[in-house]
Amino acid sequence: MTTILKLGGSVITDKDEPETVDDEQLGRAAEAIAGYVDSGGEIVVVHGGGSFGHHHAAAHGVTRADGSHDGEGLLAIHRAMGRLTDAVLDALADRGVDPLPVRPLSAGFRGEDGTVTLADGSVRTMLAEGFVPVLNGDVIAHAGHGGTIVSGDTLVVSLAESLDADRVGLCSTVPGVLDDDGAVIDEIRSFEAVADVLGESESTDVTGGMAAKVQRLLELDTPASVFDPDGLSEFLDTGRAGTVVR
Amino acid sequence: MTTILKLGGSVITDKDEPETVDDEQLGRAAEAIAGYVDSGGEIVVVHGGGSFGHHHAAAHGVTRADGSHDGEGLLAIHRAMGRLTDAVLDALADRGVDPLPVRPLSAGFRGEDGTVTLADGSVRTMLAEGFVPVLNGDVIAHAGHGGTIVSGDTLVVSLAESLDADRVGLCSTVPGVLDDDGAVIDEIRSFEAVADVLGESESTDVTGGMAAKVQRLLELDTPASVFDPDGLSEFLDTGRAGTVVR
Repeated sequence: MTTILKLGGSVITDKDEPETVDDEQLGRAAEAIAGYVDSGGEIVVVHGGGSFGHHHAAAHGVTRADGSHDGEGLLAIHRAMGRLTDAVLDALADRGVDPLPVRPLSAGFRGEDGTVTLADGSVRTMLAEGFVPVLNGDVIAHAGHGGTIVSGDTLVVSLAESLDADRVGLCSTVPGVLDDDGAVIDEIRSFEAVADVLGESESTDVTGGMAAKVQRLLELDTPASVFDPDGLSEFLDTGRAGTVVR
Repeated sequence: MTTILKLGGSVITDKDEPETVDDEQLGRAAEAIAGYVDSGGEIVVVHGGGSFGHHHAAAHGVTRADGSHDGEGLLAIHRAMGRLTDAVLDALADRGVDPLPVRPLSAGFRGEDGTVTLADGSVRTMLAEGFVPVLNGDVIAHAGHGGTIVSGDTLVVSLAESLDADRVGLCSTVPGVLDDDGAVIDEIRSFEAVADVLGESESTDVTGGMAAKVQRLLELDTPASVFDPDGLSEFLDTGRAGTVVR
């Protein structure tokens, strides 16, 4: 049973304060993950940028589409994300998990057309050996564009496909995809059915909002759940929580 | 013209003092690399562990063959190597180069038989976009063994083959492979011819001594030079210095 879990940047950081970890939320998530690993589950953790990544990405004008050849700027973003990864690794290690980092800048690249290729040999071998691979939204070399941002959501989709994952979970700050009345939509099977609620797929966030998330998840063979921290244990226990996109 | 350059750990660190960078030697090397890049050369830099890697590897009992499933130990070695990589990146960036890190733990793995597979898509894309990829001797997930050490020399050989490099250079603390009289051997074409001088291929060093280096370089299609810091500029200018192994 292989699970890909995305911990949203806004869940594990205080998005309003530069480079501030939300220790309480990160600790709760790590606790739940440790329980899942103890019960024999295989899990890959992907985390977003929150107040570590987005600030630096904005400062250096780098997005998913707008590349940069300024190595210093790319390195600043990458290093900031590494500091958040370190916090995630420490939170997991403190709870008896053996996490190891897999940095997308090292493991992957984007082709001219924007397609992300992520080498998953390290992730596969780590899982087989009982480690918990931890990936981060990152900068990544992009053919013809220097470097661009690769979002945690994109990594989740890539890993879910290449590892043929059984479960995908996106833990964000909302309990699921909400309808016009603010109620959690139980299940989404097509984008058209929820387009009115989600609005345009354009994003104010460098790594994409909910509409972009849902569109990508719909392309997966693996069912994906969108939930908030209160739903994490339910997701890990039962394989679903919040809104299920399939 | 693609060059793979290994900076030995004992060149860029003070091997007797834990986690101490030799700023003067690192600065000299970075200066020479910056000149090469300015003149249009493509270069991949690989650095060894020196007083960053070997201390932690010994403390946690991890070698190239003896694996560990202790995530904390593997992470300690990986992070120590990351601190040295940061020093290398900063030294290059200070001289106008745009370096980006490629961590072998993220990009590669070892199969059951010990063979290292290193995904080179990130390195290729970085080179094409004008960046200088910087790799480090590292820990790496090893099928059936948890994690083991991958030496800078192994990475150099892997990259030289997969990138079809034009030049390979190993910058160590000796001016080349020395004969019984302490003179630099100009060229080595077979191990047998120098076996007496090099002695056994066994190593007291976790990542292999000179005999192991020469054996690996002989397997390459690319000619490789072994030289000391005084030979680095000559190597970058002319493609050879010290002892040439082909």
